[in-house]
Amino acid sequence: MKKAIVPYTRNVAYYETDQMAIVHHSNYIRWFEEARIDFLGQIGLPYSKMEEEGILIPVLSASCDYKYAMRFGQQFQIRMQITRFSGVKFYIQYEVTDPQTGRLHATGESSHCFVSKDMVPIRMKKEHPDIYESIMNYVEEQKI
Amino acid sequence: MKKAIVPYTRNVAYYETDQMAIVHHSNYIRWFEEARIDFLGQIGLPYSKMEEEGILIPVLSASCDYKYAMRFGQQFQIRMQITRFSGVKFYIQYEVTDPQTGRLHATGESSHCFVSKDMVPIRMKKEHPDIYESIMNYVEEQKI
Amino acid sequence: MKKAIVPYTRNVAYYETDQMAIVHHSNYIRWFEEARIDFLGQIGLPYSKMEEEGILIPVLSASCDYKYAMRFGQQFQIRMQITRFSGVKFYIQYEVTDPQTGRLHATGESSHCFVSKDMVPIRMKKEHPDIYESIMNYVEEQKI
Amino acid sequence: MKKAIVPYTRNVAYYETDQMAIVHHSNYIRWFEEARIDFLGQIGLPYSKMEEEGILIPVLSASCDYKYAMRFGQQFQIRMQITRFSGVKFYIQYEVTDPQTGRLHATGESSHCFVSKDMVPIRMKKEHPDIYESIMNYVEEQKI
Repeated sequence: MKKAIVPYTRNVAYYETDQMAIVHHSNYIRWFEEARIDFLGQIGLPYSKMEEEGILIPVLSASCDYKYAMRFGQQFQIRMQITRFSGVKFYIQYEVTDPQTGRLHATGESSHCFVSKDMVPIRMKKEHPDIYESIMNYVEEQKI
Repeated sequence: MKKAIVPYTRNVAYYETDQMAIVHHSNYIRWFEEARIDFLGQIGLPYSKMEEEGILIPVLSASCDYKYAMRFGQQFQIRMQITRFSGVKFYIQYEVTDPQTGRLHATGESSHCFVSKDMVPIRMKKEHPDIYESIMNYVEEQKI
Repeated sequence: MKKAIVPYTRNVAYYETDQMAIVHHSNYIRWFEEARIDFLGQIGLPYSKMEEEGILIPVLSASCDYKYAMRFGQQFQIRMQITRFSGVKFYIQYEVTDPQTGRLHATGESSHCFVSKDMVPIRMKKEHPDIYESIMNYVEEQKI
Repeated sequence: MKKAIVPYTRNVAYYETDQMAIVHHSNYIRWFEEARIDFLGQIGLPYSKMEEEGILIPVLSASCDYKYAMRFGQQFQIRMQITRFSGVKFYIQYEVTDPQTGRLHATGESSHCFVSKDMVPIRMKKEHPDIYESIMNYVEEQKI
Protein backbone atom coordinates (compact mmCIF):
# COMPACT_ATOMS: atom_id res chain seq x y z
CA MET A 1 0.00 0.00 0.00
CA LYS A 2 1.05 3.49 -0.76
CA LYS A 3 2.23 5.68 2.06
CA ALA A 4 1.65 9.45 2.07
CA ILE A 5 4.91 11.28 1.43
CA VAL A 6 5.85 14.15 3.71
CA PRO A 7 7.27 17.00 1.58
CA TYR A 8 10.93 17.74 2.23
CA THR A 9 11.23 20.92 4.30
CA ARG A 10 14.04 23.02 5.69
CA ASN A 11 15.28 26.62 5.89
CA VAL A 12 17.67 28.37 3.50
CA ALA A 13 21.25 28.35 4.83
CA TYR A 14 23.33 31.54 4.86
CA TYR A 15 26.03 30.03 2.64
CA GLU A 16 23.37 29.28 0.03
CA THR A 17 22.92 32.99 -0.69
CA ASP A 18 24.95 35.04 -3.17
CA GLN A 19 25.65 38.76 -3.45
CA MET A 20 22.26 39.39 -5.06
CA ALA A 21 21.04 38.50 -1.50
CA ILE A 22 19.05 35.58 -2.88
CA VAL A 23 19.65 31.83 -2.98
CA HIS A 24 22.22 31.02 -5.66
CA HIS A 25 20.41 29.16 -8.45
CA SER A 26 22.73 26.13 -8.34
CA ASN A 27 21.43 25.22 -4.89
CA TYR A 28 17.98 24.26 -6.16
CA ILE A 29 19.63 21.40 -8.06
CA ARG A 30 21.13 20.28 -4.73
CA TRP A 31 17.80 20.67 -2.97
CA PHE A 32 16.18 18.38 -5.54
CA GLU A 33 18.76 15.77 -4.58
CA GLU A 34 17.99 16.26 -0.89
CA ALA A 35 14.28 15.79 -1.66
CA ARG A 36 14.94 12.61 -3.72
CA ILE A 37 17.02 11.07 -0.96
CA ASP A 38 14.42 11.98 1.63
CA PHE A 39 11.72 10.46 -0.58
CA LEU A 40 13.67 7.21 -1.02
CA GLY A 41 14.06 6.99 2.76
CA GLN A 42 10.32 7.52 3.22
CA ILE A 43 9.41 4.69 0.83
CA GLY A 44 11.82 2.31 2.57
CA LEU A 45 14.72 2.50 0.11
CA PRO A 46 17.41 4.54 1.86
CA TYR A 47 19.94 5.56 -0.76
CA SER A 48 22.94 4.78 1.46
CA LYS A 49 21.73 1.14 1.55
CA MET A 50 21.13 1.05 -2.20
CA GLU A 51 24.72 2.16 -2.81
CA GLU A 52 25.96 -0.50 -0.37
CA GLU A 53 24.02 -3.09 -2.41
CA GLY A 54 25.77 -1.80 -5.54
CA ILE A 55 22.92 0.25 -7.01
CA LEU A 56 23.86 3.78 -8.06
CA ILE A 57 21.33 6.32 -9.34
CA PRO A 58 23.22 8.89 -11.42
CA VAL A 59 21.55 12.00 -12.76
CA LEU A 60 21.00 12.03 -16.53
CA SER A 61 19.49 15.50 -16.70
CA ALA A 62 18.37 18.24 -14.35
CA SER A 63 16.62 21.53 -14.87
CA CYS A 64 15.04 24.30 -12.88
CA ASP A 65 12.70 27.21 -13.63
CA TYR A 66 13.20 30.05 -11.20
CA LYS A 67 9.94 31.87 -10.60
CA TYR A 68 10.50 33.86 -7.46
CA ALA A 69 13.79 34.26 -5.59
CA MET A 70 14.23 32.76 -2.12
CA ARG A 71 16.07 34.42 0.73
CA PHE A 72 18.20 33.46 3.71
CA GLY A 73 16.25 31.91 6.58
CA GLN A 74 13.14 31.38 4.48
CA GLN A 75 11.50 27.96 4.80
CA PHE A 76 11.07 25.91 1.66
CA GLN A 77 9.16 22.77 0.94
CA ILE A 78 9.72 20.43 -1.97
CA ARG A 79 7.03 18.18 -3.39
CA MET A 80 8.26 15.66 -5.93
CA GLN A 81 6.53 13.23 -8.22
CA ILE A 82 7.90 10.38 -10.28
CA THR A 83 6.19 10.94 -13.61
CA ARG A 84 7.50 7.91 -15.51
CA PHE A 85 9.55 4.80 -14.78
CA SER A 86 10.60 2.53 -17.62
CA GLY A 87 12.35 0.05 -15.34
CA VAL A 88 15.70 1.53 -16.34
CA LYS A 89 15.08 5.25 -16.50
CA PHE A 90 12.79 7.43 -14.42
CA TYR A 91 11.65 11.04 -14.44
CA ILE A 92 10.88 13.33 -11.52
CA GLN A 93 9.17 16.68 -11.24
CA TYR A 94 9.65 19.09 -8.35
CA GLU A 95 7.84 22.04 -6.90
CA VAL A 96 9.56 24.38 -4.44
CA THR A 97 7.15 26.40 -2.33
CA ASP A 98 7.27 28.48 0.82
CA PRO A 99 4.84 26.68 3.15
CA GLN A 100 4.23 29.93 5.09
CA THR A 101 2.95 31.85 2.07
CA GLY A 102 2.04 29.04 -0.31
CA ARG A 103 4.01 30.84 -3.03
CA LEU A 104 5.56 28.70 -5.76
CA HIS A 105 9.25 29.64 -6.03
CA ALA A 106 10.56 27.15 -8.55
CA THR A 107 9.76 24.03 -10.50
CA GLY A 108 12.20 21.47 -11.82
CA GLU A 109 12.74 18.13 -13.44
CA SER A 110 15.37 15.44 -13.39
CA SER A 111 15.90 12.07 -15.02
CA HIS A 112 17.89 9.15 -13.71
CA CYS A 113 18.84 5.56 -14.33
CA PHE A 114 19.96 2.67 -12.17
CA VAL A 115 23.50 1.45 -12.72
CA SER A 116 25.92 -0.95 -11.07
CA LYS A 117 29.24 0.28 -9.64
CA ASP A 118 30.89 -0.29 -13.03
CA MET A 119 28.21 1.96 -14.59
CA VAL A 120 26.27 -0.84 -16.34
CA PRO A 121 22.51 -0.14 -16.47
CA ILE A 122 20.43 -2.36 -14.17
CA ARG A 123 16.99 -3.64 -15.31
CA MET A 124 15.27 -3.14 -11.99
CA LYS A 125 12.11 -5.15 -12.76
CA LYS A 126 14.16 -8.29 -13.33
CA GLU A 127 17.11 -7.83 -11.01
CA HIS A 128 15.46 -6.00 -8.10
CA PRO A 129 11.69 -6.63 -8.42
CA ASP A 130 11.05 -5.55 -4.82
CA ILE A 131 12.69 -2.16 -5.34
CA TYR A 132 10.97 -1.90 -8.74
CA GLU A 133 7.57 -2.40 -7.11
CA SER A 134 8.30 0.06 -4.29
CA ILE A 135 9.04 2.76 -6.83
CA MET A 136 6.26 1.87 -9.34
CA ASN A 137 3.87 2.40 -6.47
CA TYR A 138 4.72 6.09 -6.55
CA VAL A 139 4.71 6.72 -10.28
CA GLU A 140 2.08 9.24 -11.29
CA GLU A 141 1.82 9.53 -15.03
CA GLN A 142 1.16 13.21 -15.10
CA LYS A 143 2.75 16.50 -14.34
CA ILE A 144 2.50 18.07 -10.90
CA MET B 1 33.63 43.89 -35.10
CA LYS B 2 33.22 40.55 -33.52
CA LYS B 3 36.06 39.14 -31.49
CA ALA B 4 36.75 35.42 -31.36
CA ILE B 5 35.79 34.03 -27.97
CA VAL B 6 38.26 31.80 -26.14
CA PRO B 7 36.36 28.86 -24.58
CA TYR B 8 36.40 28.83 -20.80
CA THR B 9 38.84 26.18 -19.58
CA ARG B 10 39.97 24.83 -16.23
CA ASN B 11 40.50 21.57 -14.34
CA VAL B 12 37.98 19.81 -12.09
CA ALA B 13 38.60 20.62 -8.39
CA TYR B 14 38.72 17.87 -5.79
CA TYR B 15 35.82 19.33 -3.81
CA GLU B 16 33.67 19.15 -6.95
CA THR B 17 33.64 15.33 -6.81
CA ASP B 18 31.17 13.22 -4.85
CA GLN B 19 31.34 9.68 -3.53
CA MET B 20 30.52 8.25 -6.97
CA ALA B 21 34.07 9.58 -7.73
CA ILE B 22 32.66 11.84 -10.45
CA VAL B 23 31.87 15.55 -10.56
CA HIS B 24 28.65 16.26 -8.67
CA HIS B 25 26.02 17.24 -11.22
CA SER B 26 25.19 20.56 -9.51
CA ASN B 27 28.66 21.89 -10.38
CA TYR B 28 27.94 22.05 -14.11
CA ILE B 29 25.34 24.72 -13.35
CA ARG B 30 28.08 26.66 -11.55
CA TRP B 31 30.50 26.10 -14.44
CA PHE B 32 27.96 27.59 -16.86
CA GLU B 33 28.00 30.71 -14.68
CA GLU B 34 31.80 30.78 -14.74
CA ALA B 35 31.69 30.53 -18.55
CA ARG B 36 29.07 33.32 -18.82
CA ILE B 37 31.10 35.66 -16.65
CA ASP B 38 34.27 34.85 -18.57
CA PHE B 39 32.41 35.50 -21.84
CA LEU B 40 31.11 38.88 -20.63
CA GLY B 41 34.66 39.84 -19.67
CA GLN B 42 35.90 38.84 -23.12
CA ILE B 43 33.33 40.99 -24.91
CA GLY B 44 34.18 44.00 -22.75
CA LEU B 45 31.27 43.82 -20.31
CA PRO B 46 32.77 42.58 -17.02
CA TYR B 47 29.90 41.48 -14.81
CA SER B 48 31.35 43.12 -11.70
CA LYS B 49 31.12 46.48 -13.51
CA MET B 50 27.59 45.79 -14.73
CA GLU B 51 26.48 45.15 -11.15
CA GLU B 52 28.18 48.38 -10.05
CA GLU B 53 26.17 50.20 -12.73
CA GLY B 54 23.01 48.66 -11.32
CA ILE B 55 22.45 45.95 -13.92
CA LEU B 56 21.80 42.49 -12.53
CA ILE B 57 21.43 39.38 -14.70
CA PRO B 58 19.44 36.80 -12.74
CA VAL B 59 18.96 33.26 -14.00
CA LEU B 60 15.41 32.44 -15.13
CA SER B 61 16.07 28.81 -15.98
CA ALA B 62 18.99 26.43 -16.18
CA SER B 63 19.33 22.85 -17.36
CA CYS B 64 22.01 20.30 -18.04
CA ASP B 65 22.17 16.98 -19.89
CA TYR B 66 24.88 14.76 -18.48
CA LYS B 67 26.36 12.60 -21.20
CA TYR B 68 29.60 11.34 -19.79
CA ALA B 69 30.85 11.79 -16.22
CA MET B 70 33.88 13.97 -15.51
CA ARG B 71 36.55 13.16 -12.95
CA PHE B 72 38.87 14.99 -10.59
CA GLY B 73 41.80 16.72 -12.29
CA GLN B 74 40.27 16.36 -15.76
CA GLN B 75 40.36 19.47 -17.92
CA PHE B 76 37.09 20.83 -19.24
CA GLN B 77 36.28 23.44 -21.79
CA ILE B 78 32.97 25.26 -22.15
CA ARG B 79 31.77 26.77 -25.40
CA MET B 80 28.70 28.92 -25.10
CA GLN B 81 26.43 30.58 -27.60
CA ILE B 82 23.73 33.17 -27.14
CA THR B 83 20.91 31.75 -29.22
CA ARG B 84 18.37 34.54 -28.81
CA PHE B 85 18.18 38.01 -27.30
CA SER B 86 14.89 39.85 -27.15
CA GLY B 87 16.36 42.95 -25.54
CA VAL B 88 14.99 41.85 -22.18
CA LYS B 89 15.54 38.10 -22.11
CA PHE B 90 18.34 36.02 -23.61
CA TYR B 91 19.09 32.34 -24.06
CA ILE B 92 22.41 30.55 -23.90
CA GLN B 93 23.53 27.08 -24.89
CA TYR B 94 26.61 25.37 -23.49
CA GLU B 95 28.82 22.48 -24.46
CA VAL B 96 31.24 20.94 -21.96
CA THR B 97 34.04 18.99 -23.59
CA ASP B 98 37.40 17.58 -22.58
CA PRO B 99 39.85 19.38 -24.88
CA GLN B 100 42.34 16.49 -24.55
CA THR B 101 39.96 13.86 -25.92
CA GLY B 102 37.39 15.99 -27.72
CA ARG B 103 34.67 14.06 -25.93
CA LEU B 104 31.40 15.88 -25.25
CA HIS B 105 30.57 15.50 -21.54
CA ALA B 106 27.49 17.65 -21.15
CA THR B 107 25.27 20.18 -22.82
CA GLY B 108 23.14 22.79 -21.15
CA GLU B 109 20.93 25.82 -21.50
CA SER B 110 20.06 28.84 -19.46
CA SER B 111 17.86 31.89 -19.82
CA HIS B 112 18.31 35.28 -18.23
CA CYS B 113 16.98 38.79 -18.07
CA PHE B 114 18.40 42.18 -17.17
CA VAL B 115 17.00 43.82 -14.07
CA SER B 116 17.78 46.81 -11.89
CA LYS B 117 18.70 46.40 -8.22
CA ASP B 118 15.01 46.59 -7.29
CA MET B 119 14.35 43.72 -9.71
CA VAL B 120 12.60 45.79 -12.38
CA PRO B 121 13.31 44.50 -15.93
CA ILE B 122 15.59 46.76 -17.99
CA ARG B 123 14.94 47.28 -21.73
CA MET B 124 18.57 47.14 -22.79
CA LYS B 125 18.12 48.44 -26.34
CA LYS B 126 16.68 51.68 -25.01
CA GLU B 127 18.43 52.12 -21.69
CA HIS B 128 21.85 50.66 -22.49
CA PRO B 129 22.17 50.62 -26.30
CA ASP B 130 25.95 50.13 -26.15
CA ILE B 131 25.66 47.00 -24.02
CA TYR B 132 22.74 45.87 -26.18
CA GLU B 133 24.90 46.11 -29.30
CA SER B 134 27.86 44.38 -27.68
CA ILE B 135 25.68 41.40 -26.88
CA MET B 136 23.64 41.36 -30.14
CA ASN B 137 26.96 41.00 -31.90
CA TYR B 138 27.29 37.52 -30.38
CA VAL B 139 23.78 36.23 -30.90
CA GLU B 140 23.71 33.19 -33.15
CA GLU B 141 20.18 32.18 -33.95
CA GLN B 142 20.81 28.49 -33.91
CA LYS B 143 21.73 25.70 -31.59
CA ILE B 144 25.33 24.77 -31.00
CA MET C 1 16.68 33.08 32.51
CA LYS C 2 18.72 30.76 30.42
CA LYS C 3 16.97 28.39 28.08
CA ALA C 4 18.40 24.94 27.33
CA ILE C 5 19.81 24.85 23.80
CA VAL C 6 18.84 21.97 21.54
CA PRO C 7 21.94 20.81 19.62
CA TYR C 8 21.75 21.36 15.86
CA THR C 9 21.07 18.03 14.14
CA ARG C 10 20.70 16.83 10.57
CA ASN C 11 21.94 14.16 8.15
CA VAL C 12 24.89 14.41 5.77
CA ALA C 13 23.77 15.33 2.23
CA TYR C 14 25.04 13.40 -0.78
CA TYR C 15 26.60 16.49 -2.36
CA GLU C 16 28.64 17.01 0.82
CA THR C 17 30.72 13.89 0.09
CA ASP C 18 33.86 13.76 -2.08
CA GLN C 19 35.55 10.96 -3.94
CA MET C 20 37.17 9.67 -0.74
CA ALA C 21 33.51 8.75 0.05
CA ILE C 22 33.59 10.95 3.14
CA VAL C 23 32.26 14.43 3.90
CA HIS C 24 34.50 17.03 2.28
CA HIS C 25 36.30 18.86 5.06
CA SER C 26 35.13 22.33 3.95
CA ASN C 27 31.54 21.43 4.85
CA TYR C 28 32.23 21.36 8.59
CA ILE C 29 32.95 25.09 8.39
CA ARG C 30 29.49 25.49 6.80
CA TRP C 31 27.90 23.28 9.44
CA PHE C 32 29.34 25.50 12.18
CA GLU C 33 27.53 28.41 10.52
CA GLU C 34 24.29 26.42 10.42
CA ALA C 35 24.71 25.66 14.14
CA ARG C 36 25.42 29.33 14.97
CA ILE C 37 22.35 30.52 13.10
CA ASP C 38 20.21 27.83 14.72
CA PHE C 39 21.56 28.86 18.13
CA LEU C 40 20.78 32.55 17.53
CA GLY C 41 17.23 31.58 16.58
CA GLN C 42 16.88 29.54 19.77
CA ILE C 43 17.96 32.44 22.00
CA GLY C 44 15.53 34.81 20.31
CA LEU C 45 17.97 36.60 18.00
CA PRO C 46 17.23 35.28 14.49
CA TYR C 47 20.13 36.27 12.26
CA SER C 48 17.89 37.35 9.38
CA LYS C 49 16.34 39.96 11.72
CA MET C 50 19.74 41.09 12.98
CA GLU C 51 20.87 41.74 9.40
CA GLU C 52 17.65 43.66 8.74
CA GLU C 53 18.47 45.83 11.77
CA GLY C 54 21.90 46.48 10.28
CA ILE C 55 23.94 44.14 12.46
CA LEU C 56 26.30 41.85 10.57
CA ILE C 57 28.38 39.13 12.24
CA PRO C 58 31.35 38.38 9.98
CA VAL C 59 33.72 35.51 10.69
CA LEU C 60 37.20 36.57 11.83
CA SER C 61 38.64 33.07 12.06
CA ALA C 62 37.49 29.47 11.75
CA SER C 63 39.19 26.15 12.33
CA CYS C 64 38.35 22.48 12.48
CA ASP C 65 40.10 19.36 13.77
CA TYR C 66 38.94 16.29 11.90
CA LYS C 67 38.98 13.27 14.18
CA TYR C 68 36.87 10.70 12.45
CA ALA C 69 35.40 10.97 8.93
CA MET C 70 31.65 11.25 8.43
CA ARG C 71 29.73 9.55 5.65
CA PHE C 72 26.68 10.19 3.49
CA GLY C 73 23.37 9.77 5.32
CA GLN C 74 24.99 9.75 8.76
CA GLN C 75 23.33 11.92 11.38
CA PHE C 76 25.42 14.60 13.03
CA GLN C 77 24.83 16.80 16.01
CA ILE C 78 26.63 20.03 16.80
CA ARG C 79 26.98 21.42 20.32
CA MET C 80 28.39 24.91 20.49
CA GLN C 81 29.51 27.10 23.31
CA ILE C 82 30.36 30.78 23.40
CA THR C 83 33.59 30.78 25.37
CA ARG C 84 34.22 34.53 25.53
CA PHE C 85 32.41 37.74 24.60
CA SER C 86 34.20 41.06 24.90
CA GLY C 87 31.21 43.09 23.74
CA VAL C 88 32.80 43.44 20.31
CA LYS C 89 34.37 40.07 19.63
CA PHE C 90 33.21 36.60 20.63
CA TYR C 91 34.59 33.09 20.45
CA ILE C 92 32.73 29.84 19.86
CA GLN C 93 33.73 26.20 20.22
CA TYR C 94 31.99 23.35 18.45
CA GLU C 95 31.73 19.61 18.84
CA VAL C 96 30.41 17.44 16.02
CA THR C 97 29.18 14.05 17.19
CA ASP C 98 27.07 11.23 15.81
CA PRO C 99 24.14 11.04 18.25
CA GLN C 100 23.59 7.36 17.36
CA THR C 101 27.06 6.26 18.41
CA GLY C 102 28.15 9.12 20.64
CA ARG C 103 31.42 9.26 18.70
CA LEU C 104 33.16 12.63 18.47
CA HIS C 105 33.89 13.34 14.78
CA ALA C 106 35.30 16.85 14.87
CA THR C 107 35.90 19.88 17.03
CA GLY C 108 36.19 23.46 15.88
CA GLU C 109 36.44 27.09 16.82
CA SER C 110 35.44 30.39 15.31
CA SER C 111 35.67 34.04 16.25
CA HIS C 112 33.39 36.87 15.20
CA CYS C 113 32.61 40.50 15.68
CA PHE C 114 29.55 42.69 15.27
CA VAL C 115 29.70 45.30 12.53
CA SER C 116 27.33 47.70 10.83
CA LYS C 117 26.60 47.45 7.10
CA ASP C 118 29.56 49.71 6.38
CA MET C 119 31.77 47.31 8.35
CA VAL C 120 32.25 49.57 11.40
CA PRO C 121 32.51 47.55 14.66
CA ILE C 122 29.47 47.85 16.94
CA ARG C 123 29.90 48.03 20.76
CA MET C 124 26.97 45.79 21.59
CA LYS C 125 26.81 46.55 25.32
CA LYS C 126 26.20 50.21 24.60
CA GLU C 127 24.33 50.16 21.32
CA HIS C 128 22.28 46.98 21.68
CA PRO C 129 22.21 46.19 25.44
CA ASP C 130 19.28 43.77 25.02
CA ILE C 131 21.14 41.67 22.44
CA TYR C 132 24.30 41.95 24.53
CA GLU C 133 22.50 40.50 27.55
CA SER C 134 20.86 37.71 25.54
CA ILE C 135 24.27 36.57 24.37
CA MET C 136 26.16 37.11 27.67
CA ASN C 137 23.65 34.76 29.20
CA TYR C 138 25.16 31.95 27.14
CA VAL C 139 28.84 32.69 27.61
CA GLU C 140 30.64 29.86 29.35
CA GLU C 141 34.19 30.80 30.14
CA GLN C 142 35.64 27.39 29.51
CA LYS C 143 36.22 24.90 26.77
CA ILE C 144 33.60 22.33 25.88
CA MET D 1 67.06 20.47 -7.48
CA LYS D 2 64.27 22.64 -6.26
CA LYS D 3 61.95 24.22 -8.76
CA ALA D 4 60.40 27.64 -8.14
CA ILE D 5 56.71 27.30 -7.37
CA VAL D 6 54.25 29.53 -9.21
CA PRO D 7 51.62 30.79 -6.72
CA TYR D 8 48.10 29.52 -7.42
CA THR D 9 46.05 32.33 -8.96
CA ARG D 10 42.48 32.78 -10.13
CA ASN D 11 39.48 35.12 -9.83
CA VAL D 12 36.65 34.90 -7.30
CA ALA D 13 33.57 33.16 -8.78
CA TYR D 14 30.11 34.67 -8.41
CA TYR D 15 28.74 31.63 -6.58
CA GLU D 16 31.51 32.04 -3.99
CA THR D 17 29.94 35.24 -2.66
CA ASP D 18 27.23 35.45 -0.02
CA GLN D 19 24.65 38.10 0.82
CA MET D 20 27.25 40.19 2.66
CA ALA D 21 28.58 40.68 -0.93
CA ILE D 22 31.90 39.11 0.06
CA VAL D 23 33.42 35.68 -0.46
CA HIS D 24 31.82 33.19 1.93
CA HIS D 25 34.46 32.20 4.48
CA SER D 26 34.14 28.44 3.79
CA ASN D 27 35.56 28.93 0.30
CA TYR D 28 39.04 29.80 1.55
CA ILE D 29 39.30 26.26 2.91
CA ARG D 30 38.47 25.03 -0.62
CA TRP D 31 40.99 27.43 -2.15
CA PHE D 32 43.71 26.01 0.11
CA GLU D 33 42.90 22.60 -1.38
CA GLU D 34 43.12 24.01 -4.92
CA ALA D 35 46.52 25.50 -4.05
CA ARG D 36 47.77 22.19 -2.53
CA ILE D 37 46.73 20.22 -5.59
CA ASP D 38 48.30 22.78 -7.89
CA PHE D 39 51.50 22.64 -5.83
CA LEU D 40 51.64 18.81 -6.00
CA GLY D 41 51.25 19.02 -9.77
CA GLN D 42 54.07 21.56 -9.97
CA ILE D 43 56.47 19.33 -8.03
CA GLY D 44 55.67 16.33 -10.23
CA LEU D 45 53.24 14.54 -7.90
CA PRO D 46 49.78 15.06 -9.44
CA TYR D 47 47.23 14.12 -6.79
CA SER D 48 45.04 12.21 -9.25
CA LYS D 49 47.99 9.86 -9.87
CA MET D 50 48.74 9.52 -6.16
CA GLU D 51 45.14 8.42 -5.53
CA GLU D 52 45.42 5.93 -8.41
CA GLU D 53 48.53 4.51 -6.72
CA GLY D 54 46.54 4.13 -3.53
CA ILE D 55 47.88 7.13 -1.62
CA LEU D 56 45.25 9.38 -0.06
CA ILE D 57 46.07 12.64 1.72
CA PRO D 58 43.19 13.42 4.10
CA VAL D 59 42.97 16.70 5.97
CA LEU D 60 43.59 16.42 9.73
CA SER D 61 42.99 20.08 10.51
CA ALA D 62 42.35 23.32 8.67
CA SER D 63 42.07 26.91 9.80
CA CYS D 64 41.80 30.37 8.34
CA ASP D 65 42.24 33.92 9.64
CA TYR D 66 40.18 36.38 7.65
CA LYS D 67 41.92 39.74 7.50
CA TYR D 68 40.24 41.59 4.71
CA ALA D 69 37.16 40.45 2.77
CA MET D 70 37.43 39.49 -0.91
CA ARG D 71 34.85 40.33 -3.55
CA PHE D 72 33.44 38.85 -6.74
CA GLY D 73 35.79 39.06 -9.71
CA GLN D 74 38.80 39.98 -7.59
CA GLN D 75 41.98 38.09 -8.36
CA PHE D 76 43.61 36.13 -5.58
CA GLN D 77 46.94 34.45 -5.27
CA ILE D 78 47.87 31.74 -2.79
CA ARG D 79 51.41 31.10 -1.63
CA MET D 80 51.86 27.97 0.42
CA GLN D 81 54.72 26.53 2.36
CA ILE D 82 55.21 23.11 3.90
CA THR D 83 56.51 23.99 7.35
CA ARG D 84 57.12 20.47 8.68
CA PHE D 85 57.05 16.89 7.38
CA SER D 86 57.53 14.02 9.77
CA GLY D 87 57.30 11.37 7.07
CA VAL D 88 53.71 10.63 8.12
CA LYS D 89 52.24 14.02 8.90
CA PHE D 90 52.89 17.39 7.29
CA TYR D 91 51.91 20.98 7.94
CA ILE D 92 51.18 23.74 5.45
CA GLN D 93 50.79 27.50 5.79
CA TYR D 94 48.94 29.66 3.29
CA GLU D 95 48.80 33.32 2.41
CA VAL D 96 45.98 34.71 0.27
CA THR D 97 46.83 38.01 -1.37
CA ASP D 98 45.47 40.16 -4.16
CA PRO D 99 48.36 40.36 -6.64
CA GLN D 100 47.03 43.68 -8.01
CA THR D 101 47.21 45.48 -4.67
CA GLY D 102 49.60 43.27 -2.73
CA ARG D 103 47.13 43.28 0.15
CA LEU D 104 47.08 40.24 2.44
CA HIS D 105 43.48 38.99 2.68
CA ALA D 106 43.84 35.82 4.72
CA THR D 107 46.29 33.36 6.20
CA GLY D 108 45.68 29.73 6.97
CA GLU D 109 47.09 26.41 8.03
CA SER D 110 46.34 22.77 7.44
CA SER D 111 47.80 19.45 8.49
CA HIS D 112 47.64 16.16 6.63
CA CYS D 113 48.81 12.60 6.64
CA PHE D 114 49.33 9.92 3.99
CA VAL D 115 47.04 6.91 4.19
CA SER D 116 46.22 3.88 2.06
CA LYS D 117 42.70 3.33 0.71
CA ASP D 118 41.79 1.44 3.90
CA MET D 119 42.89 4.49 5.91
CA VAL D 120 46.12 2.94 7.28
CA PRO D 121 48.93 5.55 7.69
CA ILE D 122 51.76 5.19 5.16
CA ARG D 123 55.38 5.79 6.22
CA MET D 124 56.41 7.68 3.10
CA LYS D 125 60.19 7.61 3.68
CA LYS D 126 60.18 3.81 3.66
CA GLU D 127 57.33 2.97 1.32
CA HIS D 128 57.61 5.82 -1.21
CA PRO D 129 61.14 7.27 -0.81
CA ASP D 130 60.92 9.09 -4.17
CA ILE D 131 57.73 10.93 -3.19
CA TYR D 132 59.20 11.53 0.29
CA GLU D 133 62.24 13.21 -1.24
CA SER D 134 60.19 15.30 -3.67
CA ILE D 135 58.22 16.73 -0.77
CA MET D 136 61.14 17.10 1.70
CA ASN D 137 62.75 19.28 -0.94
CA TYR D 138 60.03 21.87 -0.31
CA VAL D 139 59.89 21.81 3.47
CA GLU D 140 60.79 25.16 4.99
CA GLU D 141 61.01 24.96 8.74
CA GLN D 142 59.58 28.35 9.39
CA LYS D 143 56.45 30.35 9.04
CA ILE D 144 55.66 32.30 5.88
